[in-house]
Amino acid sequence: MTTTRSALTGAAPLVHCLTNTVVQTLTANALLAVGAAPAMVDEPLEAEGFAAVASAVLVNLGTVHERTAAAMRLAARAAAAAGTPWVLDPVAVGGLAFRTDLAAELLDSRPTVVRGNASEIMALAGAGGGGRGVDSTATADDALGAATALAGRTGGVVAVSGPVDLVTDGSRTVGIGGGSVLLTRTTGAGCALGALVAAYVAVAGDALTGAVAAHAHVALAAEAAAAVAAGPGTFAPLWLDALDAVTDFGPAQVTG
Amino acid sequence: MTTTRSALTGAAPLVHCLTNTVVQTLTANALLAVGAAPAMVDEPLEAEGFAAVASAVLVNLGTVHERTAAAMRLAARAAAAAGTPWVLDPVAVGGLAFRTDLAAELLDSRPTVVRGNASEIMALAGAGGGGRGVDSTATADDALGAATALAGRTGGVVAVSGPVDLVTDGSRTVGIGGGSVLLTRTTGAGCALGALVAAYVAVAGDALTGAVAAHAHVALAAEAAAAVAAGPGTFAPLWLDALDAVTDFGPAQVTG
Amino acid sequence: MTTTRSALTGAAPLVHCLTNTVVQTLTANALLAVGAAPAMVDEPLEAEGFAAVASAVLVNLGTVHERTAAAMRLAARAAAAAGTPWVLDPVAVGGLAFRTDLAAELLDSRPTVVRGNASEIMALAGAGGGGRGVDSTATADDALGAATALAGRTGGVVAVSGPVDLVTDGSRTVGIGGGSVLLTRTTGAGCALGALVAAYVAVAGDALTGAVAAHAHVALAAEAAAAVAAGPGTFAPLWLDALDAVTDFGPAQVTG
Repeated sequence: MTTTRSALTGAAPLVHCLTNTVVQTLTANALLAVGAAPAMVDEPLEAEGFAAVASAVLVNLGTVHERTAAAMRLAARAAAAAGTPWVLDPVAVGGLAFRTDLAAELLDSRPTVVRGNASEIMALAGAGGGGRGVDSTATADDALGAATALAGRTGGVVAVSGPVDLVTDGSRTVGIGGGSVLLTRTTGAGCALGALVAAYVAVAGDALTGAVAAHAHVALAAEAAAAVAAGPGTFAPLWLDALDAVTDFGPAQVTG
Repeated sequence: MTTTRSALTGAAPLVHCLTNTVVQTLTANALLAVGAAPAMVDEPLEAEGFAAVASAVLVNLGTVHERTAAAMRLAARAAAAAGTPWVLDPVAVGGLAFRTDLAAELLDSRPTVVRGNASEIMALAGAGGGGRGVDSTATADDALGAATALAGRTGGVVAVSGPVDLVTDGSRTVGIGGGSVLLTRTTGAGCALGALVAAYVAVAGDALTGAVAAHAHVALAAEAAAAVAAGPGTFAPLWLDALDAVTDFGPAQVTG
Repeated sequence: MTTTRSALTGAAPLVHCLTNTVVQTLTANALLAVGAAPAMVDEPLEAEGFAAVASAVLVNLGTVHERTAAAMRLAARAAAAAGTPWVLDPVAVGGLAFRTDLAAELLDSRPTVVRGNASEIMALAGAGGGGRGVDSTATADDALGAATALAGRTGGVVAVSGPVDLVTDGSRTVGIGGGSVLLTRTTGAGCALGALVAAYVAVAGDALTGAVAAHAHVALAAEAAAAVAAGPGTFAPLWLDALDAVTDFGPAQVTG
């Protein structure tokens, strides 16, 4: 149920990120820290072709607008057509019609992994009205039924962030504990996790294994960084250091 | 003349930021550090509805363009209609016609607080030709007349940044000293202050009190961070740590 | 063959950056750290007029799209018409038709300096097919012929990043060694270098001298930061500290 950190570094997957402008820097640095290569092309004229040659694609709806929505549609379709794994992070879906409709449409391209908080996953599965922006007012356990249903619909994996993250392919569910509350006080930490899921899924034998590995890597690094950080500001660069320093992780972090 | 830090943390206001792409990350992290919740929705199809449910709205013109200008107009009107406090940060207004015209138009939605440097406030009040970008070539004292006139026009509060910040509602004026010159060497520190003004105004009894509290919070945190920072790069994460660590502030920082 | 750091600080050049959204924050902070003033205006209605009054202009294609491409065309033409130095950073040119065509068109405005990695320079000179995104699969030495040819075409300077950076005006070529591999693990470090090249060229007697000074400044600061950084995350703020702390640099870093 784990893949190795060394496999990721060895493959250096190119992750094409169509993500929100708030978190692009942290996302790129997190990918670089783990040995992957980021690229942030979001012009519709380029996104389709680039997604087809990337190792994996991330679509994150945080600050989506009409131009980037067009790029996301093209990139998701291109990834699906090429058999390239792609991750959907449905930020704030539920409360806002434009992105909620877009996310529902993107599901037709069958994301390899959907990663979000409980409110987002429940909203995307049609089970709730969503949260207020990026906050989640539901717990991961609340969302497990929705996650399982959503995985059944996409044929892929669904990951729900919370104090214990849950990752499911609809039949098997894995919990990843640990981490740090400082992740929730660092803008973009969850979004960067979505990018690491894309990177790991590109090199793992299966999507569940890859998604679990990314969550374990992030949680371990967060624990290491939290142990030395003086607050939420110094946590972020230390977390990047720790993402780089994590050598490997085993079943201790993962409960199947 | 002060509101409490604990009131802010307790309310955890949702601050809808339509702000420039250079400073989105620092702005979001500053809001998280003080216990508020950031959201950066700037698609016109979403901005109006989101502004209506947010606790406060920030409109910052730093990298405004036609799409985000449309979103800002809708958000400002929605905030005004809903009685939601909103803050205008007229970055570089004066020297560039597109944003200068937009800022003048946004004044019709009567911003609760206008926050800028002396050149920007003077330009917005029609008292000067503006500076070169985000620099201010005038002092806060130079701008006090313009700030007072502008407050009279909006019916709100105007804050002018400088070595001593001035915050006025047109009749009462408060000076906030302290802080650190390193704030001026950190891109987005002033823009993040605008977001904290929005957060504090959402929870304070009146706009003047809220705006003063935000300025005092930022100044105190800057002093604490400057005392330990090795330079302008390490200052930024330490300032976020200090924004989190500030427990309360009293009249010592504020001269009425 | 060197210009002084003190000349840069004294002049405080205003650098108009039309650059990608991933690196705007680091770029602005790097400019502030060395004593220059950043501005990031990229609305076509503003870019032309602003470029004409700036001290230097940077055009970086990292996340270019149709609106910003329009702004870049206007800014490059305005800079050329005003005799203002401008720098082209052709990120990922070669593999993507939209930006490759744009870069070729921008060459007509004769950039004062073109700065990129070997793959990008070779692609722009028509000598290769480009890399995969921002990676370079060729070395700076591989690209020297292409750089020389490109400098002959623009009448300006071409800088190729690598373990040893090469800067050429077509007849003279300077190598700048040192630096740190951590620069390649920090998103935007190369892009920020492009902005510092623009700042230095604005104050130097000639473009080659300015470009070399920027490369030497970045390399020295990287060495200082790498000596104390615990990893790629803590490197970035320490590099900004070091950019600020570098007082001057001499021929030791530069081999003519």
